[in-house]
Amino acid sequence: MARVVVDVMPKPEILDPQGQAVAGALPRLGFEGVSDVRQGKHFVLEVDDSVDDETLAKIAEGLLANPVIEDWTVRRVDA
Amino acid sequence: MARVVVDVMPKPEILDPQGQAVAGALPRLGFEGVSDVRQGKHFVLEVDDSVDDETLAKIAEGLLANPVIEDWTVRRVDA
Repeated sequence: MARVVVDVMPKPEILDPQGQAVAGALPRLGFEGVSDVRQGKHFVLEVDDSVDDETLAKIAEGLLANPVIEDWTVRRVDA
Repeated sequence: MARVVVDVMPKPEILDPQGQAVAGALPRLGFEGVSDVRQGKHFVLEVDDSVDDETLAKIAEGLLANPVIEDWTVRRVDA
């Protein structure tokens, strides 16, 4: 078994109202010095060792992300 | 400026219907070998170098995560 992390983020040119809401709330709550916040999704998958990187890329691009508006990264981590 | 990543995940004892939906869809789409999927949130913050780790922890715990049901991690990455 391996643990795989897939991070999905809105592309830079895509507006991100959730991230903007967080960025706007921070100064009101007394936190200064944060100039930008972007919010995406974080998936943790438990996969058999038989699942190769190509399959993981298909899962990320086809099911976890919307590649029209989102970028994604896949990385294997120690379980 | 520094780039900070905050990952927020449902605690292990908390049900995760979004992750379960993904895990259930994978075999139907022809992807075998993924035994578990958990879905959380992934934040990327651009912060001044003056923002210390204690402040980042307060932001993560107080604003980005709900610590009753979610775990969070903070890490600085190369921008």
